[in-house]
Amino acid sequence: MGKVTLGPQTLVYPMPAMLVGADVDGKPNFMAVAWGGIACGDPPMISAAIRHGRHTLKGIRQNQTFSVNIPSVELVKETDYCGTLSGSKADKASACRFEVFYGKLGNGPMIGQCPVNLECRVVQILNLGSHSLVIGRIEEAYVSEQCLTDGRPDVDKVKPLTYVTSPAARYQGLGEVVGKAWSVGKDLA
Amino acid sequence: MGKVTLGPQTLVYPMPAMLVGADVDGKPNFMAVAWGGIACGDPPMISAAIRHGRHTLKGIRQNQTFSVNIPSVELVKETDYCGTLSGSKADKASACRFEVFYGKLGNGPMIGQCPVNLECRVVQILNLGSHSLVIGRIEEAYVSEQCLTDGRPDVDKVKPLTYVTSPAARYQGLGEVVGKAWSVGKDLA
Repeated sequence: MGKVTLGPQTLVYPMPAMLVGADVDGKPNFMAVAWGGIACGDPPMISAAIRHGRHTLKGIRQNQTFSVNIPSVELVKETDYCGTLSGSKADKASACRFEVFYGKLGNGPMIGQCPVNLECRVVQILNLGSHSLVIGRIEEAYVSEQCLTDGRPDVDKVKPLTYVTSPAARYQGLGEVVGKAWSVGKDLA
Repeated sequence: MGKVTLGPQTLVYPMPAMLVGADVDGKPNFMAVAWGGIACGDPPMISAAIRHGRHTLKGIRQNQTFSVNIPSVELVKETDYCGTLSGSKADKASACRFEVFYGKLGNGPMIGQCPVNLECRVVQILNLGSHSLVIGRIEEAYVSEQCLTDGRPDVDKVKPLTYVTSPAARYQGLGEVVGKAWSVGKDLA
């Protein structure tokens, strides 16, 4: 077995590279978030861990709405850029030439170029220590037309980005298919 | 832009394929969980969304401890198997020939063959609807010796599994590196 203890560490593989959006003082802002994921199925909910002082979190508190945008590998530069500086210092949406659009909630800005967008309403914000865990109810899902096959989202067209934590600290696409879910494990039953 | 609305859906890409472990009535059990992720940095915390009636959740409530095990692509069959049936009906640890080990908390069973294991103590369990969101503090991280490079976890040796949600419903490895984090976006600044 041969295990080494490394102390408490946030070692989850893989992590999604998500862009979380909010209107802050009336202006759309986006930040990169790798810490989060689906939190409930019915109703559909998502979580995102955000440092307390972040500009985006200010907007989430103001409006109680936010978006989660799933970038494709083509948006790796924009995703990384949104994770490296604060919206209080730069207009990230403009710098990235994001086509910002709004949905039914009216103030949860979303990114046209991202193949998948989840429009969310805040359910709860937990103060867990260094981070606030924002839990939102997914009110609507938007998918780019060209990323659908037979009306359903097609991951081979979405081409999502994975964030790989330190020390690698890099973005990777998805690799080879290694098995079909609810199927490949049947041999063991 | 061309967006299509699909109604509220849990469309996050990619999701991790995690194996969550707990002792249930004194016996180790493991279930596959794709819904969750890191919830806080300091202290390090993780979340996992689990349906209320699940056998593993019973054990988490009993002991207030659990583990998150990161399988490699070689463990795709075992991972899928652990997601397809209940520990109330089968001894999944035996069927998968898992080398179960325990750490400092004493009753959070971990899987020797998984390259990364996070031993967790429950901080909070939120009832969000169909699922309980279990939030745990990561008390220790265990990494297989052969997955380290210079004493740090090496993702190219961990070779983690990604779960791709329906309709694809499959497992994929990580693909090509598309950029260095905190670096590739600098062009846009």
